[in-house]
Amino acid sequence: WGVESVFKDLQTGGVTASNATCAIWEGFEAAMNNLADWDGWFEEFSGYIRPVRSVGDIHSAKTEGRAGIILGWQNATPVQNDIRRFQLFHRLGVRIVQLTYNERNLFGNGCWERTDEGLSTLGQAAIGEMNRLGILIDLSHVGDRTVLETIDCSQQPVCFTHANARSEHDSPRNKTDEAIRRLVARGGVVGVNAFP
Amino acid sequence: WGVESVFKDLQTGGVTASNATCAIWEGFEAAMNNLADWDGWFEEFSGYIRPVRSVGDIHSAKTEGRAGIILGWQNATPVQNDIRRFQLFHRLGVRIVQLTYNERNLFGNGCWERTDEGLSTLGQAAIGEMNRLGILIDLSHVGDRTVLETIDCSQQPVCFTHANARSEHDSPRNKTDEAIRRLVARGGVVGVNAFP
Repeated sequence: WGVESVFKDLQTGGVTASNATCAIWEGFEAAMNNLADWDGWFEEFSGYIRPVRSVGDIHSAKTEGRAGIILGWQNATPVQNDIRRFQLFHRLGVRIVQLTYNERNLFGNGCWERTDEGLSTLGQAAIGEMNRLGILIDLSHVGDRTVLETIDCSQQPVCFTHANARSEHDSPRNKTDEAIRRLVARGGVVGVNAFP
Repeated sequence: WGVESVFKDLQTGGVTASNATCAIWEGFEAAMNNLADWDGWFEEFSGYIRPVRSVGDIHSAKTEGRAGIILGWQNATPVQNDIRRFQLFHRLGVRIVQLTYNERNLFGNGCWERTDEGLSTLGQAAIGEMNRLGILIDLSHVGDRTVLETIDCSQQPVCFTHANARSEHDSPRNKTDEAIRRLVARGGVVGVNAFP
């Protein structure tokens, strides 16, 4: 399978660290199985990659000449309806969580959802728990109102890891100038997406 | 609920460390939920208890005057049929695993099983994985033949955390002199059970 060539390319290309998606639509058990896969890859391919669980680990990755892997989710579905599980996943290395992926989930709305609702009560609690643990909240595929409410609700900076400006390319998948400005004003970071 | 009084009694009584059962018949997801419970208890009752994940933590528990909690299972069922999951649970703090509990499971036979089969192929692999990770294997409720085969198969000492000598009280739940001697000869430890 192709993971080895991907890891080798990351290392050969001099990538310091990368947010690797380890859940998109998964529930609890499947997301845990993905972490077991990563445990095996970190061991088998330790010449190319290393886990990143702290800022110090990013510096170590650079020094070692290995690609650092920050495990992240595109969707918060793996905790299902029990936000205590964020702590289990955090202890197993998950450091970035996108609140919703395109559609509505129990926490809020995605950018392709038919309506534009904001955070649920559980979504607010999830944000508090991720803030407490030190999980970075990603809003790239999140719907407009949920984006703004999360920026306001979060006690820590949040980010768009991969999105573009809607003022440049009009798509629900891209971010309004208001959202980008408000996110940056609160210390957040915006990463550009390869696709418009 | 009564956990607080139990933790308080452990601390007041001067217990240095205790193996606390956090799975008996559970599958994967339920065993993970139990660990989330323990995460909460370690935080809420940190005046009485502390997690033990290494020998050093036992010394710390003694110094701090708190009861150390070593998380353990009475049954290896939580990994279901995927022994990679031992590593996930190990990283979340599980340090003692009984291979079987009274009945047969996928790994071997329990002491009350109708027949006396030994280890399965998966059981042998599970022992190797627990050896690799540093999980102590408990054989207290395990069947005779599985006990002997595990003592021989394991690269690390194993233990009877709670059992008595069958020569003193004739019950399948107690251990033969042969098993006790062989376990001790390989560095293992025997704990006496409160019930005969």
